[in-house]
Amino acid sequence: MQIGVIGSGSCGKAAREVAFEVGREIARRGAVLVCGGLGGVMEAAAGGARSAGGCTVGILPGTDRADANPDVDVVVVTGMGIARNLLVVRSSDALVAVDGGPGTLSEIAFALQLGVPVVGIGTWKLDAERLGGRRVMEASTAAEAVELAVRAAGGTGGA
Amino acid sequence: MQIGVIGSGSCGKAAREVAFEVGREIARRGAVLVCGGLGGVMEAAAGGARSAGGCTVGILPGTDRADANPDVDVVVVTGMGIARNLLVVRSSDALVAVDGGPGTLSEIAFALQLGVPVVGIGTWKLDAERLGGRRVMEASTAAEAVELAVRAAGGTGGA
Amino acid sequence: MQIGVIGSGSCGKAAREVAFEVGREIARRGAVLVCGGLGGVMEAAAGGARSAGGCTVGILPGTDRADANPDVDVVVVTGMGIARNLLVVRSSDALVAVDGGPGTLSEIAFALQLGVPVVGIGTWKLDAERLGGRRVMEASTAAEAVELAVRAAGGTGGA
Amino acid sequence: MQIGVIGSGSCGKAAREVAFEVGREIARRGAVLVCGGLGGVMEAAAGGARSAGGCTVGILPGTDRADANPDVDVVVVTGMGIARNLLVVRSSDALVAVDGGPGTLSEIAFALQLGVPVVGIGTWKLDAERLGGRRVMEASTAAEAVELAVRAAGGTGGA
Repeated sequence: MQIGVIGSGSCGKAAREVAFEVGREIARRGAVLVCGGLGGVMEAAAGGARSAGGCTVGILPGTDRADANPDVDVVVVTGMGIARNLLVVRSSDALVAVDGGPGTLSEIAFALQLGVPVVGIGTWKLDAERLGGRRVMEASTAAEAVELAVRAAGGTGGA
Repeated sequence: MQIGVIGSGSCGKAAREVAFEVGREIARRGAVLVCGGLGGVMEAAAGGARSAGGCTVGILPGTDRADANPDVDVVVVTGMGIARNLLVVRSSDALVAVDGGPGTLSEIAFALQLGVPVVGIGTWKLDAERLGGRRVMEASTAAEAVELAVRAAGGTGGA
Repeated sequence: MQIGVIGSGSCGKAAREVAFEVGREIARRGAVLVCGGLGGVMEAAAGGARSAGGCTVGILPGTDRADANPDVDVVVVTGMGIARNLLVVRSSDALVAVDGGPGTLSEIAFALQLGVPVVGIGTWKLDAERLGGRRVMEASTAAEAVELAVRAAGGTGGA
Repeated sequence: MQIGVIGSGSCGKAAREVAFEVGREIARRGAVLVCGGLGGVMEAAAGGARSAGGCTVGILPGTDRADANPDVDVVVVTGMGIARNLLVVRSSDALVAVDGGPGTLSEIAFALQLGVPVVGIGTWKLDAERLGGRRVMEASTAAEAVELAVRAAGGTGGA
């Protein structure tokens, strides 16, 4: 199972702590963590996953492997800019969105369009009227978010 | 000047009428119309631009040129799926969003991230708190939307 | 009909002259010229097409429209780097390769893989043994190259 | 270190055996194997790497994770078609090409353009005149190919 974590490349301390916790929970459940490979939420989540012995994948927008944060194990260099956001979505069985700006919004939008389950913690609220039955699941803790994501991805949730 | 029109590939009659009018206004001002090349809002906008003698560009997600609607003059075949949404945004000096689902939301998000001006008519309302000063301009008519888009793109608005 | 011209972004005078002539022939036959939008062969071909009143499309690798050469009418901004080479191929009914380095080789390879007809003038010679029945048609003049390309694209060749 | 293995998705028994051996050597040296995730050379190389306990990454052209061969550990789903070839190249510190058709030729071309070292075993011979100092290193055995690739990638070769 591959679970993606999305969120801004620069974020506050609270979001970093949540993202770290999300990454750790993902690794504890034996899933691979997929992220955009840069800083902020991506780095914190990769750090959390690594702290629990997990495998982390970073899908970079640029052309330089050295852009990857130090907790990324497998680096995918796209050179496609933010079009790589779609690859993070497509490569994940489910996504957890932590905080986030417009880049995260593009990823949530792709997930909704493609039917990839997405769980949010303190992220974009979407215009219910336009969602047409689609939704971003909401969680208030990292553990709850990962639980929801793993279940939605078809895995067995639970500790 | 290149103005993009974004919106769903399947939409109701009202949205089609607005999109046609938007396309026509874009052509009247001498701008090239950029769109995703398929049906719905894209097709109506291309039809409007062509009715006023304008040049239309369709950037297709698939691999088959025959997917382009009949009012597209220049067909760009990407074979990249919905990653092509980003190309529509990058190739536009400003965007007009008409109605729209998750695909349109991804395009609005990219525009906000990249600083491409975007005007909406009956489209997604975004979480003001997360926009951080960015915004989607709102218009209530096609003429007003194109006027705002052309001005934001750096051209001289006005009839 | 859309005919692509591929070749290096920096080339000698002889290649520029051939590319200009190729562009002019393409426009004379009423086809749209597709290219990578930058200098060298791309710029010369666009200049030739424009000199004959044709429509030119430049599919740029970078993120800045100002990278396009001045003879490009429609600019497609990909921000995908040299992955845009594939878009030049996919958007063309047939290709003419003039001179060229590794980038051109990647385009010829994609054309062979996708079955897009490609005509070469002074370009890469390929390992016959590996082509398995595929081939790059060879031409010795611009007029001959465009004639072959237009025919292969399904149009009526001949002056 | 990440070493890519490129080659056709359908190939004969001899090429499969070489690819398996290449994958095994890559894993023995502690490098991650990167490939296009499908059959033929890609599958054999992944199988070889896994047989030696290595980590394997498959960068798929399509949209379905189930397309990945069973020996891929980390699946990157691009939905970009053969534009994903460039991602295989960019994500590798060095490449080994085994046999191969036009798709492999596109990867070799990108590697030459980007300066990613590439070693060939029974693959495309290139037009020396056009290479301008660039080259594909030749090897006659899997062990030699991986030795050359690892050295070129900046690692310490040698068993």
